Amino acid sequence: MRVVKSVSTMQRLARNWRRRGVRIGFVPTMGYLHAGHVSLIQRARRIAGKNGIVIVSIYVNPAQFGPAEDLSRYPRDFDRDWQLCRQAGADVIFAPNDAQMYPGQGEGRYSTYVVEERLSRSMEGQSRPTHFRGVTTIVAKLFNIVLPDAAVFGAKDFQQAAVIQRMVQDLNFPVKIVVAPTVRETDGLAMSSRNKYLDASQRPQATVLWKVIQRAKAAVKNSSRPLAAEKLRRELKAFIQRQPAARVDYIQFFDAQTFEPVRTVTGGTHIALAAFLGNTRLIDNGTL
Amino acid sequence: MRVVKSVSTMQRLARNWRRRGVRIGFVPTMGYLHAGHVSLIQRARRIAGKNGIVIVSIYVNPAQFGPAEDLSRYPRDFDRDWQLCRQAGADVIFAPNDAQMYPGQGEGRYSTYVVEERLSRSMEGQSRPTHFRGVTTIVAKLFNIVLPDAAVFGAKDFQQAAVIQRMVQDLNFPVKIVVAPTVRETDGLAMSSRNKYLDASQRPQATVLWKVIQRAKAAVKNSSRPLAAEKLRRELKAFIQRQPAARVDYIQFFDAQTFEPVRTVTGGTHIALAAFLGNTRLIDNGTL
Repeated sequence: MRVVKSVSTMQRLARNWRRRGVRIGFVPTMGYLHAGHVSLIQRARRIAGKNGIVIVSIYVNPAQFGPAEDLSRYPRDFDRDWQLCRQAGADVIFAPNDAQMYPGQGEGRYSTYVVEERLSRSMEGQSRPTHFRGVTTIVAKLFNIVLPDAAVFGAKDFQQAAVIQRMVQDLNFPVKIVVAPTVRETDGLAMSSRNKYLDASQRPQATVLWKVIQRAKAAVKNSSRPLAAEKLRRELKAFIQRQPAARVDYIQFFDAQTFEPVRTVTGGTHIALAAFLGNTRLIDNGTL
Repeated sequence: MRVVKSVSTMQRLARNWRRRGVRIGFVPTMGYLHAGHVSLIQRARRIAGKNGIVIVSIYVNPAQFGPAEDLSRYPRDFDRDWQLCRQAGADVIFAPNDAQMYPGQGEGRYSTYVVEERLSRSMEGQSRPTHFRGVTTIVAKLFNIVLPDAAVFGAKDFQQAAVIQRMVQDLNFPVKIVVAPTVRETDGLAMSSRNKYLDASQRPQATVLWKVIQRAKAAVKNSSRPLAAEKLRRELKAFIQRQPAARVDYIQFFDAQTFEPVRTVTGGTHIALAAFLGNTRLIDNGTL
């Protein structure tokens, strides 16, 4: 397995592979990999085939963090990431630094961004105003450097996957977007690099995000009529906040295609939520 | 020569050429071609080589026109464009319609844009606030559809070429940008599709854009000291407005790398200007 740190080297390799008809599968990550990432890499491996190339990028992208967020303390462990990538079947780790990805940014020599202005406005986009602009920009850059045939994203970041799918469609990137299922701990907590922040008392309380989705599913299943979204939201919020460390950021019911919020909740409605456990912000989502 | 109207067909052709190692040279245009465009196509032909493919896109991009601008009356003549492309050595004309380029835009199903936030702010960006966002977005889309090795732009749109060069660098598009010299009528007027709008009394007056650049060059050459930009601007503005049909939009002296305006003008300073002749807005630029 090869580690590439230079943008120009990575792009040259990718162009050569493309020219030889080698399929490229791509998994963009911020590192500190877990079983969720491993499942994405394995999926990319199946897509690329045994003669293809699987590239995993590891880059903590400053542009998608807000000024008050956890950029500086975001967890990193390259040696462990390297082992997991190798075991999962990756061929290349692309691990650039900030000077490679945003050259001259401090001196005003970086000035281009990709913005998605519809699906990105609500939920994560509302709570984290510059987040998706950072995501779409870095993913556009990575696509141009890695030149993948297919890129695999996790369903845990459901809105992110939708925003990227929209970007690819709107800007005509020649890349197939694959969204792979959320991988969970045995108690239901969605795998996330940020779970590392949770202390011993917060960790069991964090399962409340998963439990509340199950609770919403049961409510829909047990009702013969559509449920009022606002009432259900209030009930679920109260349920979460019974956990002493938990504070709800948002709970949203919406149409998974348009991301428009719905007033009534039925089977097929999508739920997404964000909650703080102490200072750690976690997200989860599911179809009801 | 082949005419392609479908985005998916164009992208499939381009991917096949790339896979076979065929070099692709690209000239994006809004049609109503003139000798300036012909020189860009010939340049693309030389870059692609005789075994390469030269693609000319013809698309009047609504996103780069403001609401009060000339989108609906922008001149079109496909048959003539076809002849000029063939004579200049193009292999493919890519001529999509709005439904191909911005599917679902009316229903909110188009929502992604590329924005350049530094070089695009002054001059054309100030006079036409949404113009460059439209330009960077369409060029990003075209690059992803046509997959060129190199794309050729005209120096007449000097700021546009710089904004696109910055976009390519920032977003890592694997495309070489070539800027080819402005082609002029024998009396100095820069070739432009919009020259068609000029009536018989405006047409001779329009040479004042070229003359004023020559006048600025002479002023720099004849001065042993740097010239005050503001004073020179006032003189040049008065010179232009001696033409009864002419009204200056802007005259700017700036550093051609940073696009920062300068206070003093010397050899090497860049000048760019926009002026209305009647209702027709023309631009030109040059190095002093």
